[in-house]
Order: sequence, then C-alpha cells, then structure tokens
Amino acid sequence: MIDRIAILGTGLLGASAGLALRSAGFAGSIAGWNRGKNGAQKALELGAIDVIAPEPLAAARSSDLTLLCVPIYATLDLMAQLASILTPDQLLTDVGSTKAQIFAQAARHYNTPDRPAFLPGHPMAGKERGGAELADANLFRGAVWLFTDDPAWQRSPRGAELVADWRALVAAMGARAIDIEPARHDEMVAWVSHLPQFTATALSALLEEEVGDAPELKDVGGRALREMTRLGASPFSMWRDIALTNTEPIERALHALEQRLAYLRENLRTPALRDEFGQANKFRRE
Amino acid sequence: MIDRIAILGTGLLGASAGLALRSAGFAGSIAGWNRGKNGAQKALELGAIDVIAPEPLAAARSSDLTLLCVPIYATLDLMAQLASILTPDQLLTDVGSTKAQIFAQAARHYNTPDRPAFLPGHPMAGKERGGAELADANLFRGAVWLFTDDPAWQRSPRGAELVADWRALVAAMGARAIDIEPARHDEMVAWVSHLPQFTATALSALLEEEVGDAPELKDVGGRALREMTRLGASPFSMWRDIALTNTEPIERALHALEQRLAYLRENLRTPALRDEFGQANKFRRE
Repeated sequence: MIDRIAILGTGLLGASAGLALRSAGFAGSIAGWNRGKNGAQKALELGAIDVIAPEPLAAARSSDLTLLCVPIYATLDLMAQLASILTPDQLLTDVGSTKAQIFAQAARHYNTPDRPAFLPGHPMAGKERGGAELADANLFRGAVWLFTDDPAWQRSPRGAELVADWRALVAAMGARAIDIEPARHDEMVAWVSHLPQFTATALSALLEEEVGDAPELKDVGGRALREMTRLGASPFSMWRDIALTNTEPIERALHALEQRLAYLRENLRTPALRDEFGQANKFRRE
Repeated sequence: MIDRIAILGTGLLGASAGLALRSAGFAGSIAGWNRGKNGAQKALELGAIDVIAPEPLAAARSSDLTLLCVPIYATLDLMAQLASILTPDQLLTDVGSTKAQIFAQAARHYNTPDRPAFLPGHPMAGKERGGAELADANLFRGAVWLFTDDPAWQRSPRGAELVADWRALVAAMGARAIDIEPARHDEMVAWVSHLPQFTATALSALLEEEVGDAPELKDVGGRALREMTRLGASPFSMWRDIALTNTEPIERALHALEQRLAYLRENLRTPALRDEFGQANKFRRE
C-alpha cells in the first residue's frame, strides 16, 4: 500500500489533494514542496501536508508516490529529472491540463519493468484563482479525474500495484475516473475547458476596455455578467503552458466560435436565430 | 399613495414583483393577468397576486399603477392600447430589456398633463428560465433597476406622485435605481447583458454540435463549463424582441468579441496573450 506521499507544488490543487487524502482516511505521511515558501507554509498550517520538503527531488526519492501539481513545463522538467532518481518501485503521477507531451515523456522515460512508473492524470477541478489558501478538501468530490494511461505499458509489479492504489485513493477523494487517449483528451479539453476559459478572457478583456471605467455597470450586468466573466480572473501563469502545449486544438475551437458568433450576428433578424437558441437549449437540457 | 396595482404578465418577473411588493409591506390589492392561464394560476397560488384578471385592459383601467411584464413588442402594443384608456391620474410602467422604442412610444402617447403617466423601467434581474413557478420575492434584492425617465416630461400632479411612489416601492423591494438616457441604456446593456447572453448561446450551440452526443464530457468541463453555458438555456421567446429592438448595438458588441477572439487565437504563442489575461484580470479585480 501507499505509505509515503510527496506533493510537489502545494498550490490550490496540491494542497487540496493533501486535504482530500486526509479526509478520505489516508494515514501515511505527506511531504510537500513548493517553489514559493508561503505556499508550502500555508499548506502545512492547513494540515494538507505534514512536513515541508526543502527540495523536490529528495522528497520524491523518499516517497512511494509523488504527485506533481506544477505547471506543465515544470511537470515535464521534473519528469526528466526524476526518471533517473526514482526506482521501478515508485510511482510518479501528475495533474497537468494537457496530456500529449506528458504522455510522450512518460513513454520515453517511464513504465518499463526496470524504470519508475508514471500515470498521467488530470482532475477536472479548480478555481479561477490559485494558491494554497483556497485549498478545499472537497475540491475533487463529484469531479471527473481523467487518466491517459496506456494498457501496453509494462510496469514492475510494485509499480502496477501503486497505480491501482492511487486510483483507489482518487476514488476515495470523491472523483470519478475516466480513461481516455491523450490526443482525444487534448482535443476534448480544448472544447469543454480551454474554449470556455479563453472566451471568458476575451469577453472580460473587451468589457474592461468598453465599460471598465464605470464600475456601476458591472452591477447592471448582474449574475449573468459575473458568471460569464468569472474565469477572466484566471492567471496567465496557469494558462500559458496550456496555450503552448495545446495550441492547434485551441485554435480550432476558437475559430469555430468566431464563426458561430458571426453567424448569430448576421441572423439577429432572421428565423435562424430561433434555431441557434434551440441548439443552445439542447446543450442545457436536463 | 398607490393602492391598486395590476401586473400584466405574471411570468418570472411579474410574479416576483408581486411577491417582492408583499414582502416590502405593500398592503394594497394586486391583480394579475397572464396570456397563459397556468402562469396566472401559479402566481395566485404563490400569493404574488390576489386575483386573476380575465382581461388586461380592464385590469389596468381599475388600477393606480400597472406594471407591464411582457415581451417588448407586447409592451409596445399594450402601451398603444392603454394610452386612450388610462387617465392622467394613472401610471403605467414596464420592465422591458431595451428602452429606445418604449421611450419613444412613451414620449408620443404619455407624460403630458392630460395624458396618463408612463415610467420606462428595466430591473437587471432574471434567471435563465422564465415562468411564475421560479418566482422569488428576493429577485430584485441588490439588483439595479434602471429608469430612462425624461425630466422634461410634464405629468399631472397625481402622475408625478405615482412615479415617486413607485420609485419608493422599487427601493423597498431592495433594488437600486439608476437613471440613464435610453440610447445610452441600450448601448450599455448590449455590452453587459446582451453580449454575455449571445456569447453563451453561440458557445452552447457550438458545443452541442461538437460534444452533445457525449454527455460525460459535460461533467468533464465542470463548474467552468456549466457557468459559461448556463444562459444557453435562455428561451428564444425572451430574446427575440431584444435582438429585433437593439440590433445595431448587439451587432457592434458581437463583432468586437469576434475580433478579440481572433486576436487571442493568433497570439496563443506570443507575449500578447499575457496582456490579454492581464486586461481580463483587471475587469475582475475586487
């Protein structure tokens, strides 16, 4: 069974994972490392981790399972470094929002009988702002946790066991696992996650220019405006790596929305507007 | 003081107004009329109205104040009919989402000493679905209630008094009045209300086409996707008149968003993406 966990990156997701593991009854040790000291300190105060690790590689080396909760390029970098440090009896897993490059790196450096195990993961949970101070033991409850595992990977018996144990812990945190191919994953999240984010960013940036100097107008917009721009608060630091590692699927989704908005604009006075509302209603049917 | 109120159209807004008036301590009578009988019956059961009026014109004729809570073209139609039925000692007001045409009609048929009084109003409150069954006594609490009144209008003394009384009742329902010119109103709501709605409609319609046959993908999107498409459930019947009476401002807003999305798409790999996120963050700063 998994006894020692290291969480590398104790921001919102990492600290929430620590709290959720405790809440799910995980009784082993949880070491946490964070690039900024405040985040690690906050995670410790919240009880998300037991101890602050001074350095990520040593923390991973002395753990059964290491959970990477850092941006995508930092994940790829740590994967490269840890490949020669971890043993086949240790599991590395992640929460990265795009999976093609992480999957390729896992295929290159992990998941043979004499190499450490790596399980690519992506919990569909988060908030528009990051940071350990927003950590929530229930963040993953009811959420989908995507895995882009490869059934052909030949892990060591202990590595395979750790993968099964981690999947059980993910279920215990209240998440529902869905297995999916990495290319399909990236295409799909471009539609249901990245497109909504970039739409909210574009809408918020535009409205800042148009009505940003009249704060009372935000009240005028009410709940609808607040909801449609909430993701406008998302930090660039969280989305830069996503834009860089899933560029083509995001471009396709954005282009399709531009065309859809133009079609709607050209049909404000025609019966086609009714059909667009009907199609939209279908997406939201109960 | 206002003693007898008629609410014409007891859908979400009309029935909520009845409940909010009662909750604010209004002790007079409230008659309600609705095109569909179920809506009137439901409003009666909820206590939003005291009595179902069989016919709108007679209900207005026997009231101090008539509140129009019907779509915009129905509002314009009732305004035309009631102009010759009401006296200068009666007030008509509305909740229509666009104000240029309603204002023009009010200037043409109302608001002289020998004509009935009309106060154009627009509470910024609602839900993505309509109907009396969703009525809420707190719908207007904390919301902005826009008025496009004209200080040059010469109402009868009783008409002017009724306007002041209705403004006091609006405040008692928990709403905050903002006075604004009708053209500026329509331009502004195009940005903060209509653009978010049509964006959600286009996004929902597009996603229905792309992932509508895979319901598990909606779970994958999580809260962010739910919020960005909630307004996709809005019925065409509610938005048709808005699209027809505020076409040019909505076209301008949609076109600006199309350009913004294209700019973002062309800059997924450039430093301009950071600036777009920064601009969006500003709109959502606390």
